[in-house]
Amino acid sequence: MATVNENFLKLQAGYLFPEIGKRRRAFQQAHPDAKLISMGIGDVTQPLAPAVIEAMHRAVDEMGKKETFHGYDDGGVGYLFLREAICKNDFKARRVDIDVDEVFISDGAKSDTANIQELFGLDNVIAVADPVYPVYVDTNVMAGRTGPVTGPGTYLKIVYMPATAENSFVPEPPREKADIIYLCFPNNPTGAVATKEQLKKWVDYARDNKAVILFDAAYEAYIGDPQIPHSIYEIEGAKDVAIEFRSFSKAAGFTGVRCAFAVVPKELRAYTKAGQSIVLNPLWNRRHCTKFNGVSYVSQVAAAATYTDEGKKQIRETIDIYMSNAKLIRESLTTLGYKVYGGVNAPYIWLKTPEKLSSWEFFDMLLEKAHVVTTPGVGFGPAGEGYVRLTVFGDPQNVKEALERIKNVLK
Amino acid sequence: MATVNENFLKLQAGYLFPEIGKRRRAFQQAHPDAKLISMGIGDVTQPLAPAVIEAMHRAVDEMGKKETFHGYDDGGVGYLFLREAICKNDFKARRVDIDVDEVFISDGAKSDTANIQELFGLDNVIAVADPVYPVYVDTNVMAGRTGPVTGPGTYLKIVYMPATAENSFVPEPPREKADIIYLCFPNNPTGAVATKEQLKKWVDYARDNKAVILFDAAYEAYIGDPQIPHSIYEIEGAKDVAIEFRSFSKAAGFTGVRCAFAVVPKELRAYTKAGQSIVLNPLWNRRHCTKFNGVSYVSQVAAAATYTDEGKKQIRETIDIYMSNAKLIRESLTTLGYKVYGGVNAPYIWLKTPEKLSSWEFFDMLLEKAHVVTTPGVGFGPAGEGYVRLTVFGDPQNVKEALERIKNVLK
Repeated sequence: MATVNENFLKLQAGYLFPEIGKRRRAFQQAHPDAKLISMGIGDVTQPLAPAVIEAMHRAVDEMGKKETFHGYDDGGVGYLFLREAICKNDFKARRVDIDVDEVFISDGAKSDTANIQELFGLDNVIAVADPVYPVYVDTNVMAGRTGPVTGPGTYLKIVYMPATAENSFVPEPPREKADIIYLCFPNNPTGAVATKEQLKKWVDYARDNKAVILFDAAYEAYIGDPQIPHSIYEIEGAKDVAIEFRSFSKAAGFTGVRCAFAVVPKELRAYTKAGQSIVLNPLWNRRHCTKFNGVSYVSQVAAAATYTDEGKKQIRETIDIYMSNAKLIRESLTTLGYKVYGGVNAPYIWLKTPEKLSSWEFFDMLLEKAHVVTTPGVGFGPAGEGYVRLTVFGDPQNVKEALERIKNVLK
Repeated sequence: MATVNENFLKLQAGYLFPEIGKRRRAFQQAHPDAKLISMGIGDVTQPLAPAVIEAMHRAVDEMGKKETFHGYDDGGVGYLFLREAICKNDFKARRVDIDVDEVFISDGAKSDTANIQELFGLDNVIAVADPVYPVYVDTNVMAGRTGPVTGPGTYLKIVYMPATAENSFVPEPPREKADIIYLCFPNNPTGAVATKEQLKKWVDYARDNKAVILFDAAYEAYIGDPQIPHSIYEIEGAKDVAIEFRSFSKAAGFTGVRCAFAVVPKELRAYTKAGQSIVLNPLWNRRHCTKFNGVSYVSQVAAAATYTDEGKKQIRETIDIYMSNAKLIRESLTTLGYKVYGGVNAPYIWLKTPEKLSSWEFFDMLLEKAHVVTTPGVGFGPAGEGYVRLTVFGDPQNVKEALERIKNVLK
């Protein structure tokens, strides 16, 4: 008899975004003439950069000729041309030495942050911020690394670290012992960023406890403040204790192109129960080669094009559009008397709901009155209750209109 | 202290293809002038079909304009246009009803066949043919569903079903109880195919034992014999017990494009330890949405183009090229006195090594004397000892030359 992985049955109601999609569709069906504007799901709206498009056409042409056709990439870890560009532009330029063998190209930071837990024993205690990107938690539930549900969105055997207005949404290392710590800066969903000093506390904690930090830097391209680190490896000693995740999805609008990467330094170790230290880089390589066959050649060429001079300039222009949205959203909502966080070094704005409305109540209200789709903060964890997340990825015209509507119906 | 997943440490030496790559590079370094011809790794050599290239260019152009830009696909399960084309062409055309909600687009059959085991409890006994595609076994080892190594390439708690010349490489259902059964027809590595009668025995076994069949049909496009089923769902009752995997990699040369799909019928169930039956389709949906963010839009458009009239005709022409290779390889080697199997309804040829040479001895001999790269049969399991696998995906000129060389040095 085939038995099911009963850990899946512990999972709470549908993954957040499908649930939002469902409510959105239900509303649209009931009001077919309403023009919904999404400030919810973190999907981009601006087209790919011309330099990227040009590179993709070139790559497609190569795929159509026998002499330049590309099949599997060697071992599925990504083409050297892309891994070299990453090491040079994302790390060397910030005085961080990352070797090409430490970079693993993948189809998305979601996949990477979901899959990385496979390298670790089921006995590890994971620590996550609350609110948190649901993928970190749900994938550990599926693997059986947690106990049953303890409340809305929480599970036994996870250390939750509340990220609140009081700590500026940057939690301190926990007093409890945690073995694997998920950090995300610039943060999804709060838009908070961590300083070098704050990250150093985490690196110290991990070194002291032989813990591993899983550092999600998918939004680093949105950092404007030169004092804020883009990579955890800017903190000394981090290569011994941290894996970093990056993505082209938000940096270059690749949500429909699919390209990202993980950095697994060769210094990084975990331990057997008997206390033997095991280097994780070859284990991730083995996992990659066994369960994955690489990223589309066209997508990898597209990603490499974002590192050309033209590409850099063009993706910066798109990021500037989104960050103008951020500024407008922040200013408009502040003027209306709302309390907003984030949106300065991050593409997310964390909006306090008014008049003690719950997240879903405010979500429904914005949907029904302003026809604006947001993301309920409680969907990211109990400490997200009383917030909604706004993304800045909308088209500027739509963002303006959404803010006008909010102003008219909610003043 | 972060502990490692010690199941990874059970895995035997590097995944087969990287090991071959290593020997190949070592040889090439020692003999820089030797022109190696690969008949080993299953990578294609012919360019993408013109209809596919054209569709990809169109999709790239869409990505460059705001009005036609595509971000995330809804839920990551694949665009409806592609799932509809699959249901119509791959199934309806063979009188099999598959609903679009039963089709999940992915980046590869390797990913799917590797990830599917996550839906099942760790207590399930898996059954695999011997020889077998290593991914089925290694991913179960990683998950902890097996015991330690028991011999070269074998692990405790797996039921191995020898596929030998005696049973024409199509094993019978085992006498032991197995809960999850991996089947692959047309078979990698032996090139064997299963008749409806043979598959029916498996469906009956699964129904009788409440087992689940994981049916890898990645090579179905190579079936020429009209009597051979392309899908396990051509067997009555199979939708209750089987998941099917398909890929555009070999059907349309998409090894560098990355697109595949899994079919998880809504009838299919597994069981909790308490005996409750659980429908697997929503669980796979949940897994998909949580750990994956969909396939590149350009790749999905490319896949859809293989179902147009032009596309169908063109990919058929490429398959014909490969099957001409197959015929030539079979005939040449038979003339030289070798015993060959497969290569009639499959892109793989299973070659008996001469003079009791081991698989690796014959591999090294072909590499050193004929400068031809093959895949040692023993890499697929102990019953593969004494065989090497040849693929038919080479360029016809190279295949001819490889056979000439073999003729000259090994006669």
